[in-house]
Amino acid sequence: MRLINFTDVEAQEVEQGATGVKIRWLIDEEAGGKNFCMRHFEMAPGGSTPHHEHEWEHEVFILEGSGEVLSGDTPHAFGSGDVILVPGGEKHQFRNTGDTPISFFCMVPASNQPSR
Amino acid sequence: MRLINFTDVEAQEVEQGATGVKIRWLIDEEAGGKNFCMRHFEMAPGGSTPHHEHEWEHEVFILEGSGEVLSGDTPHAFGSGDVILVPGGEKHQFRNTGDTPISFFCMVPASNQPSR
Repeated sequence: MRLINFTDVEAQEVEQGATGVKIRWLIDEEAGGKNFCMRHFEMAPGGSTPHHEHEWEHEVFILEGSGEVLSGDTPHAFGSGDVILVPGGEKHQFRNTGDTPISFFCMVPASNQPSR
Repeated sequence: MRLINFTDVEAQEVEQGATGVKIRWLIDEEAGGKNFCMRHFEMAPGGSTPHHEHEWEHEVFILEGSGEVLSGDTPHAFGSGDVILVPGGEKHQFRNTGDTPISFFCMVPASNQPSR
């Protein structure tokens, strides 16, 4: 068993087309994420993730803050307590359109999965 | 894309050896959890999950509350913001030893994974 606190993991700036976004890999493959990985993100007001697509899905839970997520080019508002599934192959982007940081989980399959 | 609120999902009482535990399947396989599923639990003070083992891993994040988790028969205290990986094959149990409900995520691989 591995038990750590969220704050034990250093938040890293996300590059590759993101703005104002930090990531914490809470459970990665090295830590034992055999089938999937747990990641936490913080997104500053005005920040965004890349508008991109890939073969694997995202499973997202919004802890705090509000913004919009693009499904293709169509925006959908989200807020605290929302659960978002972005299927593989769908173009998407998360944007912070609010005045406060967004705190959210975004889980992904491990690299051994067929979709990766 | 699928976007719902956490409160849209009905909390169901967990049976099979659990006490005072409710589950919400936020993303199950039917909803598109192709590789893994997102589940949220509430555990009342004094409540516990079964002391059991299985081949698949748990990836857990504690949102609120405090308690202890058994790794085999050894208890480890946990609280808000803790991240717990229970590897497949390890006997485990979550117990609410505090005075307030515990709110936590527990993610599992989908049933198409080799470990299931």
